[in-house]
Amino acid sequence: MNEKIARFLEERRPATPCLVVDLDVVANNFGALSQALPDARIYYAVKANPAPEILRLLVELGSSFDTASVPEIEMCLAAGADPARISFGNTIKKQRDVVRAFELGVRLFAFDSMAELEKIAESAPGARVFCRILTSGEGAEWPLSRKFGCEPAMARDLLLAAARMGVEPCGVSFHVGSQQKDLAQWDVALAQTAELFQSLEAEGVHLTMVNLGGGFPTRYRTDVPATEAYGAAIREALLRHFGNRIPETIVEPGRGMVGNAGVIQSEVVLISRKSANDNRRWVYLDIGKFGGLAETMDEAIQYPITTERAGDAEPVILAGPTCDSADVLYEKADYRLPADLRIGDKIAIHAAGAYTTTYASVAFNGFEPLSQYYI
Amino acid sequence: MNEKIARFLEERRPATPCLVVDLDVVANNFGALSQALPDARIYYAVKANPAPEILRLLVELGSSFDTASVPEIEMCLAAGADPARISFGNTIKKQRDVVRAFELGVRLFAFDSMAELEKIAESAPGARVFCRILTSGEGAEWPLSRKFGCEPAMARDLLLAAARMGVEPCGVSFHVGSQQKDLAQWDVALAQTAELFQSLEAEGVHLTMVNLGGGFPTRYRTDVPATEAYGAAIREALLRHFGNRIPETIVEPGRGMVGNAGVIQSEVVLISRKSANDNRRWVYLDIGKFGGLAETMDEAIQYPITTERAGDAEPVILAGPTCDSADVLYEKADYRLPADLRIGDKIAIHAAGAYTTTYASVAFNGFEPLSQYYI
Repeated sequence: MNEKIARFLEERRPATPCLVVDLDVVANNFGALSQALPDARIYYAVKANPAPEILRLLVELGSSFDTASVPEIEMCLAAGADPARISFGNTIKKQRDVVRAFELGVRLFAFDSMAELEKIAESAPGARVFCRILTSGEGAEWPLSRKFGCEPAMARDLLLAAARMGVEPCGVSFHVGSQQKDLAQWDVALAQTAELFQSLEAEGVHLTMVNLGGGFPTRYRTDVPATEAYGAAIREALLRHFGNRIPETIVEPGRGMVGNAGVIQSEVVLISRKSANDNRRWVYLDIGKFGGLAETMDEAIQYPITTERAGDAEPVILAGPTCDSADVLYEKADYRLPADLRIGDKIAIHAAGAYTTTYASVAFNGFEPLSQYYI
Repeated sequence: MNEKIARFLEERRPATPCLVVDLDVVANNFGALSQALPDARIYYAVKANPAPEILRLLVELGSSFDTASVPEIEMCLAAGADPARISFGNTIKKQRDVVRAFELGVRLFAFDSMAELEKIAESAPGARVFCRILTSGEGAEWPLSRKFGCEPAMARDLLLAAARMGVEPCGVSFHVGSQQKDLAQWDVALAQTAELFQSLEAEGVHLTMVNLGGGFPTRYRTDVPATEAYGAAIREALLRHFGNRIPETIVEPGRGMVGNAGVIQSEVVLISRKSANDNRRWVYLDIGKFGGLAETMDEAIQYPITTERAGDAEPVILAGPTCDSADVLYEKADYRLPADLRIGDKIAIHAAGAYTTTYASVAFNGFEPLSQYYI
């Protein structure tokens, strides 16, 4: 944990569990990504962490915003964002939400189906639209289903239709999968995208934008390629597939922008064994799957976890505080904690700035949602 | 859906998604369970649905309450419950929460480890305590990990220790797994429990109470045994293993008390296919895994879903409205919806009274938590 967060926890001693986010780290991440992809426009994926403090900082830094709902659009506007810099990136929108977004000044919309395109054409005439295509998601740590996107052949038909329907087909988006560590995945997706550009050009529809989505990882328990390596891989792939006609590019970092900026402080509620000769301790924390750590589902995201004890690290099963059997964080992943760990000890859960606060349940088992501090 | 809920939805036309709970059904469930297990005391598992309307009704009906946290205890007290009828059933409690519960008048506590027993002995002197034992969970639909309970041999040592530590070891609890459809599981667990009773009796510790936990199912897509069949199986097992010295019994129904009392009304946001020859439609609803349907995790709980359309039922993949790839409800389970289903249609998600409202996330993707009506 960095010194600033450590000092805050030391001085303020907030009740646990709580998330503390260092806004300087967010600013650094924005800077590093801007430098790695100097020609791309950054649309922060608001869903990763919509805290007003983060949104205001990113407005100041010149970020644009990728939003999933009308409330997210309103949060960006409240933080001072220009609606021209907001994308309504969810491909699943109610008609009335398209209406409302358009009223609020949003002019960039995602879609991946004819029905969604019809909603946008009806309620956001003249808006720019981009079609999301399906990618394999190989190499991503957080599962990517086929929920979003359509096959490229369908995307071609939809983009052609868009031009006839009074909206402006501006480009293509894809998502290589959250926490994507295989740099080659951008190359695969950009090859498909370039093909689509050419095919539409032949029909007289000139696309100008590629939305590279998110996927930029945060370092959890294992190393990830540096932001610069991502930038280089993407720049090379763009050059390879688009030559000297490189389109406008958009990236939508969420986890990559705020993940490593936050630390959750938790308290050990109970340490026990199931029998006298049980070889692993059960360590129960005051935060679990339903209190903000939803991404531990199937042990997908493995947060680094540390304590101040110095004893030998011994294997543990980590679980949350609720009466739900499914509220076990890590059982298969080999987590180890000091042998001298005690009930009441503080635990630090690192790289927890993304996808924690808003995932927390309203009041499951009567527990309050995760409290949060932005410093 | 029953007439009362249908009329409410018809007349009030609440914004979707929303949960509507018929309190008469809750009262009927309480009555049926009281009749099936006339000698058992019913401790409603508050975590299933802590709505004040439900708690007040159950106070009136004479129910006791199984709670998971201090806020749940406070909700029961606010609804008029006598603290003598409240059990602090979570085996994972902070010391200060034991202190607070004791101050509030709670005198019955669960534990499954020495460390937890020490907390109770220190902060709730003289309280009655029961030890949870591990059971296999075979036959349950909602996964039961080894998170709660300890091996019976350890339970024996802990109950003996309790007597020396100034609390009153009153009994044993187990949980056969939520949505348990195999009636024989209670017999297996009661056999273990009876053995423990005898073993402790030999040491001069006389246990008086068996907490049978929950597990009573709600009918989702497939039939479940009737409440009466559960009652008969449990009564027989008690007689078989305890003979004419049947102890005081407690049951902790949550799902079995409120599950079938609630219907979620949702709206179809989008219907699409991923390619021209895709043989399954994707149907996106305005509620998903993060809006209250967390129990669709791994497609474990399969809610019956109906619409008012009469077309031929054709296979669908059902998903929620968020930008999260994991927010897919049913892909492997064979769900079918009418071919003439349209965007904007209302969908009824049945048997949704338990484990939905409090599981909803605070604001994931900016979406509001599930709204709720009790009629």
